[in-house]
Amino acid sequence: MKRIIYLFQILLFSTITALAQRPPSISSPDVHADNSVTFRYFSKSAQKVTLVGEFLANPVALKKDTSGIWSVTVPAIKPDIYPYSFFVDSVQIADPNNTYIFANERFKRSIVDIKGDKPLVHSLQNVPHGKINYCYYQSSSLGTTRQLLVYTPPGYDAFSGNKYPVLYLIHGGSDTEETWTKVGHANFIADNLIAAGKAKPMIIVMPYGNVRPAPMPDFTKDVINDIIPYIENNYSVLTDSKNRAVAGFSVGGGQTLNIGLTNTDKFAYICSYAPYTATEEFKKNFTDWNPDATKINKQLKLFTVSVGTEDFLYESVKQNIAMFQEKKIKLAPFIVSGGHTWMNCKLFLANTLPQLFK
Amino acid sequence: MKRIIYLFQILLFSTITALAQRPPSISSPDVHADNSVTFRYFSKSAQKVTLVGEFLANPVALKKDTSGIWSVTVPAIKPDIYPYSFFVDSVQIADPNNTYIFANERFKRSIVDIKGDKPLVHSLQNVPHGKINYCYYQSSSLGTTRQLLVYTPPGYDAFSGNKYPVLYLIHGGSDTEETWTKVGHANFIADNLIAAGKAKPMIIVMPYGNVRPAPMPDFTKDVINDIIPYIENNYSVLTDSKNRAVAGFSVGGGQTLNIGLTNTDKFAYICSYAPYTATEEFKKNFTDWNPDATKINKQLKLFTVSVGTEDFLYESVKQNIAMFQEKKIKLAPFIVSGGHTWMNCKLFLANTLPQLFK
Repeated sequence: MKRIIYLFQILLFSTITALAQRPPSISSPDVHADNSVTFRYFSKSAQKVTLVGEFLANPVALKKDTSGIWSVTVPAIKPDIYPYSFFVDSVQIADPNNTYIFANERFKRSIVDIKGDKPLVHSLQNVPHGKINYCYYQSSSLGTTRQLLVYTPPGYDAFSGNKYPVLYLIHGGSDTEETWTKVGHANFIADNLIAAGKAKPMIIVMPYGNVRPAPMPDFTKDVINDIIPYIENNYSVLTDSKNRAVAGFSVGGGQTLNIGLTNTDKFAYICSYAPYTATEEFKKNFTDWNPDATKINKQLKLFTVSVGTEDFLYESVKQNIAMFQEKKIKLAPFIVSGGHTWMNCKLFLANTLPQLFK
Repeated sequence: MKRIIYLFQILLFSTITALAQRPPSISSPDVHADNSVTFRYFSKSAQKVTLVGEFLANPVALKKDTSGIWSVTVPAIKPDIYPYSFFVDSVQIADPNNTYIFANERFKRSIVDIKGDKPLVHSLQNVPHGKINYCYYQSSSLGTTRQLLVYTPPGYDAFSGNKYPVLYLIHGGSDTEETWTKVGHANFIADNLIAAGKAKPMIIVMPYGNVRPAPMPDFTKDVINDIIPYIENNYSVLTDSKNRAVAGFSVGGGQTLNIGLTNTDKFAYICSYAPYTATEEFKKNFTDWNPDATKINKQLKLFTVSVGTEDFLYESVKQNIAMFQEKKIKLAPFIVSGGHTWMNCKLFLANTLPQLFK
């Protein structure tokens, strides 16, 4: 059936394709019922095509058929969402036939969603859905208009007069404000946990964290002086620290520590995922830090640091956890297997949401 | 200064880069004050890198420096948003260093926004901004949950009790529900025309039109039976035909004709842009069409067909215009220069919006 659909599609677009000199339409990736996946790429001239993906320990080679379609079928993959790309000779590319791109500034990779038999916490399920708003705010700190994404929970638009708590959720370095939804499915994770009664209905704000030239201090200013006021002026939200959380991954995990721990009067929840902390700002804030731990521990309802044991930042994260604990700051580590990946990001977020705003 | 910023960035991400084996960060595209643009690509192994773009009549070659950075500067380009890509040896790719991707199912191209001195109708300007909502609706026609985008105008969220007219806006074949905003800047066009008092505040619904296996009849069902009811149940909108418009480009322009002209009781505005009509559905609906022109002309407040004289569909569109006119259907052609491009799409939409809901 799939083949017939694609033949039909090829027929329908044949005029446009011929005139625009586009390659033929190919189905890739094809996720099969047993969770094996076929990847395909069309090239008559390539000498070698290989697949790299976060579900593979090593690259695998695709084989070419007589029509110029290269393919490989990878045996059953554990259901999750994974980034992958092709190397065509020496050129790394996203899969031209896959609409779903890893939202990022510096590389172009595709993503494959292996759904499996049982619905996962990040899967689109038959539950009420929130919306993602793409908004524009004026940043006085940065002197420009910036885009941010706002998840509103199901029922938000009913304008019942309800006010919601807010999670500020920051992407990794070189990611964009879309990565938490496009790759992290933050909206579906929230939809599913809210529907199951496991998380409170909340607003999730996903700003763009790659501020240049100084990502750390300038972004903290942008969050505190511009983003929070924009959200509080434009959304029906609760504005005390007990209803405000900050979380982030990698460079965003470092930003989370800087923003959160220097503003414990504003955030009662600080959730840092695999934080990258080799920055001037982190050094400035925490090297000679002499915190009033009793006060901070009273202000914070949750301070968690999550990391995978195969994360290339694992040792650094462990050292930071120890550093905060030495200073008597209460911290709940969440250590899992896995690397510095968005598979783990989804896990971290799904672990965090039920702990917020209780 | 730009160079210093990027050196800083390289430094900041050097650990991550080294461990993830990413190529160095490069600034591309660099749009200069005189509207010339420098494109860059990094490869030590490529034999040849060329640039293709809709601002170029012919591909141009990039030149490699000793560090492996290939570059070319294209002289002043007319301000607009253009798709482009690189050919690295024989592999066509999106620019790895450019975040902005042409939202499409079948090719990966980048887009470059040449803003120029004077703000264009599609540029982000300092005016009140609407929001784009990413929503999910249940399609009974297609038996699945689907994503659509909804532009709400500035002030919509104030819940003043205002009800808004609705434009249903359809992308081209192989585009996605994001193409009208990501490439067509439909939201900024609406923001700017509303701010100037040239267009009425309206809701713009951008569904996903690539329904398989039969894009035309099944998508019409989806729009009429599922999308319109979803919008009217979930947004504060006017529901009579005088407050409902349909528009679309290419395959979506053909869908617009099918949806609109078979439902003139539901849509008083039909705006077809460079329609692709070589489909069974168009043949079925219009080959032996014997319309009650007097009635239809009373129902329709605007029926417009737009096309560029260099569009590969120009002859076909002219024939269709003549066919509708022969049948005494009132039709306002909007013929401009240019091809089957999203540069023209923006022009068509900016020409349409001021004519709607007057």
